[in-house]
Amino acid sequence: MTPSSPPPLTVNLQERSYVIEFGAGLGEPIAARVRALQSEGRRLAVVTDSHVAVKQRKALRESFGNLPIKVVAAGENSKTLAVFGSLLDFFAAEKLDRASVVFAVGGGVIGDLTGFAAASYLRGIDYYQVPTSLLAMVDSSVGGKTGINLKAGKNLAGAFHQPRGVYVDTALLRTLPRSEFAAGMAEVIKSGLLADVKLFEELERTPAAPGDSRLAGIVRRCCEIKAQVVEADERELAPEGGRALLNLGHTFGHAIERVAGYGTYLHGEGVAIGLCAAAMLSRELGLITSTDEARVKKAVSAHRLPVRLRKPLKAEGLMAAAAADKKARAGQRRFVVLTRLGVAETRSDVPAELAEACFRAVGAK
Amino acid sequence: MTPSSPPPLTVNLQERSYVIEFGAGLGEPIAARVRALQSEGRRLAVVTDSHVAVKQRKALRESFGNLPIKVVAAGENSKTLAVFGSLLDFFAAEKLDRASVVFAVGGGVIGDLTGFAAASYLRGIDYYQVPTSLLAMVDSSVGGKTGINLKAGKNLAGAFHQPRGVYVDTALLRTLPRSEFAAGMAEVIKSGLLADVKLFEELERTPAAPGDSRLAGIVRRCCEIKAQVVEADERELAPEGGRALLNLGHTFGHAIERVAGYGTYLHGEGVAIGLCAAAMLSRELGLITSTDEARVKKAVSAHRLPVRLRKPLKAEGLMAAAAADKKARAGQRRFVVLTRLGVAETRSDVPAELAEACFRAVGAK
Repeated sequence: MTPSSPPPLTVNLQERSYVIEFGAGLGEPIAARVRALQSEGRRLAVVTDSHVAVKQRKALRESFGNLPIKVVAAGENSKTLAVFGSLLDFFAAEKLDRASVVFAVGGGVIGDLTGFAAASYLRGIDYYQVPTSLLAMVDSSVGGKTGINLKAGKNLAGAFHQPRGVYVDTALLRTLPRSEFAAGMAEVIKSGLLADVKLFEELERTPAAPGDSRLAGIVRRCCEIKAQVVEADERELAPEGGRALLNLGHTFGHAIERVAGYGTYLHGEGVAIGLCAAAMLSRELGLITSTDEARVKKAVSAHRLPVRLRKPLKAEGLMAAAAADKKARAGQRRFVVLTRLGVAETRSDVPAELAEACFRAVGAK
Repeated sequence: MTPSSPPPLTVNLQERSYVIEFGAGLGEPIAARVRALQSEGRRLAVVTDSHVAVKQRKALRESFGNLPIKVVAAGENSKTLAVFGSLLDFFAAEKLDRASVVFAVGGGVIGDLTGFAAASYLRGIDYYQVPTSLLAMVDSSVGGKTGINLKAGKNLAGAFHQPRGVYVDTALLRTLPRSEFAAGMAEVIKSGLLADVKLFEELERTPAAPGDSRLAGIVRRCCEIKAQVVEADERELAPEGGRALLNLGHTFGHAIERVAGYGTYLHGEGVAIGLCAAAMLSRELGLITSTDEARVKKAVSAHRLPVRLRKPLKAEGLMAAAAADKKARAGQRRFVVLTRLGVAETRSDVPAELAEACFRAVGAK
């Protein structure tokens, strides 16, 4: 670990508590964990994707030596029942038993897939996460949500399964495409907006970039914010607030991703546009000022993220998608709004016309 | 419910506690539950198999009216990833949301499959069980184990997911094939042997048969025994004893099922032979007398169950299968033995030669 690494963060979930380590260059700490688990006689296996297998070949060897490794095709198209099944078969072929441990090395797709497979294999075995994208570091390191897509929609099947530990190694971000780095920053900006105005202001002053020495600390702060929310509402049962607050910008963003066709916008790009729409909604509801709204757009833009649709989408379709969002209750659209910069709340009583106006303001027709 | 129905049984698992209702003719109580859930605005769906759909057509209509129903091909071959996926797609097509509820109406296959799909859909929705086989009534009503088979073995993937309630309607047993009734009785005899010598003695005196007026009470007693074990060790984490005790006869039985080829012996038939082998093992270890051992065999036989293999299987293969059993720890065979009739314990130190001798005693070559 580098001398300047921020301290580890404990996610407190009783017997499912775990620690997230942060740093730039965690190959050796991970290798030490591997040795420790092996010395307990536990069988280990690694799951990664085809991009990471190539770009991080050296890091993978340093941490995992010649452990059995399953390489999944990179991309959202791997988040299917069939690939989930291939992971289960891989675990069985490697004779993993209840004491065995799996490492998920990759972005959100690998974390979600591997986590769900670990949750399901023998009704649950341990797994560690080594996120390789900024989005996965800030979004998937905390929460325990795992899953796959169905034909009918994204993340419709899965499990809550907390990892036994997470290694956030910001050195892995050096090989991340610039657009994916930006997409991850959308979730960082979101974290600041919903819970930490100081973080937001720091990003306003100096936008973050790959190689930024502040990065491990910024990711840690995002994980801390998410951990506080998740610790209070692990299974997303709170009727208002709770985990739903983490969806700031997401009701708009998910609808955009879906109507544009998955893959047209990166998830973080949808969220970025969604944050601008949520800021407008909050201003229209009289919660924040138009200056605040402008600050949100400016910070989004400064991180090379879109503040509006690249091509218009139909407002009608976006509204239907927002109502069908699985976070919706009984078909009612549910939005997260800002009561001020750094504080958010859920609202199920947003008039349809107002929601539609927000979609139009970010480029819907 | 019939006037003579035994009282409901509460399975105490904190916020996952639920009630099992017993009786001969529960169509109306189930219909009442359906109406109550619908009046809360919850969407409902039913999963059953092709045999039950035909044989219990009237009961299904009485309880569930015209609710959406998915009919799965009857038999163990449906316990696959593909059928699991088809249930998830069915739930999505019926637009089930987080508040929706699924009813699993069938034997163990339907309960395991539907329970796993309910556990995974939107990361977990509520489900009720209506077991239609004696085995499912005594074995699947309590425990929350759900799952599917992989190519590499049975029940290798799944989840712990407790139902919200179970309806044990012994009237449904009237259409059950006689051999399947007997197979269910193997688990009943097992329950008596491991925890209730009085239950065992009652079965010794008068073997149970379909239509037996004692049946609802006998099933209730089995559920009660299993509930006590599961409440103390919900996730099968106890190093010794605990849920593993429920595997009395199963290390032998699973090996027999597997080596003979799944489907050659009904699960309960494997368990029946396994109980005889476990009784011999217990006697060889000096725990029970040869009179006790003979009583076990006699009770098994009196319930039209096999006490030995119909065709010899290789002892070597059976031993390997017993070591590969997923209940084994680090490849060590783990057996449940009787310290006396009605009391069981786990043993990991059984000499290989002794285990092999027990396999030979029930017909291995």
